[in-house]
Amino acid sequence: MKLASLKHARDGKLVVVSRDLTQMADASDIAPTLQAALDDWSEVEPLLQKRYEKLNEGKINARPFTEADCASPLPRAFQWADGSAYINHVELVRKARGAEVPESFYQDPLMYQGGSDTFLAPHDNIEFPQTEGWGVDFEAEVCVITDDVPMGTPADKAGDHIKLLVLVNDVSLRGLIPGELAKGFGFFQSKPSSAFSPVCVTPDELGPDWASNKVHRPLVSHLNEEKFGEPNAGVDMTFDFSELVSHAAKTRNLGAGAIIGSGTVSNKEDGQPGRPVKDGGLGYSCIAEIRMIETINDGRASTPFMDFGDRIRIEMFDRDGQSIFGRIDQTVTQKEG
Amino acid sequence: MKLASLKHARDGKLVVVSRDLTQMADASDIAPTLQAALDDWSEVEPLLQKRYEKLNEGKINARPFTEADCASPLPRAFQWADGSAYINHVELVRKARGAEVPESFYQDPLMYQGGSDTFLAPHDNIEFPQTEGWGVDFEAEVCVITDDVPMGTPADKAGDHIKLLVLVNDVSLRGLIPGELAKGFGFFQSKPSSAFSPVCVTPDELGPDWASNKVHRPLVSHLNEEKFGEPNAGVDMTFDFSELVSHAAKTRNLGAGAIIGSGTVSNKEDGQPGRPVKDGGLGYSCIAEIRMIETINDGRASTPFMDFGDRIRIEMFDRDGQSIFGRIDQTVTQKEG
Repeated sequence: MKLASLKHARDGKLVVVSRDLTQMADASDIAPTLQAALDDWSEVEPLLQKRYEKLNEGKINARPFTEADCASPLPRAFQWADGSAYINHVELVRKARGAEVPESFYQDPLMYQGGSDTFLAPHDNIEFPQTEGWGVDFEAEVCVITDDVPMGTPADKAGDHIKLLVLVNDVSLRGLIPGELAKGFGFFQSKPSSAFSPVCVTPDELGPDWASNKVHRPLVSHLNEEKFGEPNAGVDMTFDFSELVSHAAKTRNLGAGAIIGSGTVSNKEDGQPGRPVKDGGLGYSCIAEIRMIETINDGRASTPFMDFGDRIRIEMFDRDGQSIFGRIDQTVTQKEG
Repeated sequence: MKLASLKHARDGKLVVVSRDLTQMADASDIAPTLQAALDDWSEVEPLLQKRYEKLNEGKINARPFTEADCASPLPRAFQWADGSAYINHVELVRKARGAEVPESFYQDPLMYQGGSDTFLAPHDNIEFPQTEGWGVDFEAEVCVITDDVPMGTPADKAGDHIKLLVLVNDVSLRGLIPGELAKGFGFFQSKPSSAFSPVCVTPDELGPDWASNKVHRPLVSHLNEEKFGEPNAGVDMTFDFSELVSHAAKTRNLGAGAIIGSGTVSNKEDGQPGRPVKDGGLGYSCIAEIRMIETINDGRASTPFMDFGDRIRIEMFDRDGQSIFGRIDQTVTQKEG
């Protein structure tokens, strides 16, 4: 099943979207918003599923689906926690900061508490008053959305709470990270509002490509008009989503609609940190990684962070080339003062 | 005006509460929930205010108000960011960790992104599967709740966005903090669900004790049956709430209903870190501070962190001795597993 939230009021208006992302049908009579649906998922999910089937069979009043009309599936959420499950990303970003990767990182997931009150829409501009010194970067990731997860749910049970999958652009301000991390309280200003893909899907939509609580498809990023990365989200993921959900629920209950992110998708290549797309590699899901590669190879980073006018597109395709989640498509613009 | 959310569904049911906290009147016809009220505050606030006045004048159908029936005013929220504005607390906690306080901490607020999907009710037990090694502590704090705050709002304007005040017990797991902070991503498992006071109030309820964007009243904590602290929330607050809100909004918009906390309220005494209540001092708003004082004075901490059965009460009184926000009253209990 595929779901989206049309831009409407603060929490959007729920629609079901056809598998090929061309048609949609109103679902707000079943649940007005995606949050409302998740609050009562076991009751609501079969009704949405039925409508989804009818939509795909052409047996229902449908309207054309336009990604640009969408808010993020949860335009605001009560919980957004982002892991960092691809150790290749952690190794590269740490190297870039001159920091070591502690041994514990291979057993204990890294996760930060994100802010979730004002997500950007998938095609919204990324507006900032300045880029100078802020180091505007994208991070292409996969996320799960859960129902209620009781405190202490072990990893072998946490996967049962995964109800939906979605992509995210976890916008990051690299220039602000070192100062914030030095203060010891983690990210805050350096992790501004994120944007999610127009569509979220139930895991069954991925067929065999959802396995072992991982998404086994390439995540494709284009920076401006060039392909920037297509690492496989199922490869080199040190902690699967059930482990990430369990980690998040260790000392608290998670509320329905909790979004748990994978961290920046990143693949190794023959045990090495991989190559840029233009050199025949799978590339990267953020600029920070290629800058580190450039620093290793050339002694200095040559790819700049994003500036006003730069565009990032993030998408994932199924085996038939069909976009699964629709496209995150954002341009950095200057906020008027 | 005083508002509360009766336990009802996931987001509570809005009531206005009389100034003396004895009576309440339904307000769910004006706005079903506090979040809904905050989403449309400029329209809704005058209607709630009118009902509040009638309630206090006895001109409306009222029912007895019972704090134990309350959820936290926002039972779940879209944004919960907690500052650490009382530098005395920061100095003591850092000393306890053997860490220095950087000079920048006196100019740039410390703030962490909290989780907001499952707040505890004010009289809920604090349930954990274990206390051993977790170092269960309370933190008594004051918070503001804002309307929509645009990105980049300067400190001299941010105060205008403060709509409500509330108390919080920011439950902390001291035993898990060093490990998490060492990972560099800030608090996560070490900051489980917080509980807020039964009632939130508009700043005018404090009269002259809300001034310069600070609350100038003692915050009273009792651990088990003994007074543990009564520092004044208006004293030694290095950053006022307008500065904290502005800090939180530097690179993002804040959504209506954002809760911004002060951090653990803590007063110095003659430039020193203060004395316990039993020694005639103002005491502390968390156990970590008294343990540090004990370590300084006696070479070792003697006050244990909270164990099953330990009770914490947090309250603030106006100049006439009237409880302003009602009482946070929680006991640590073992979660059945």
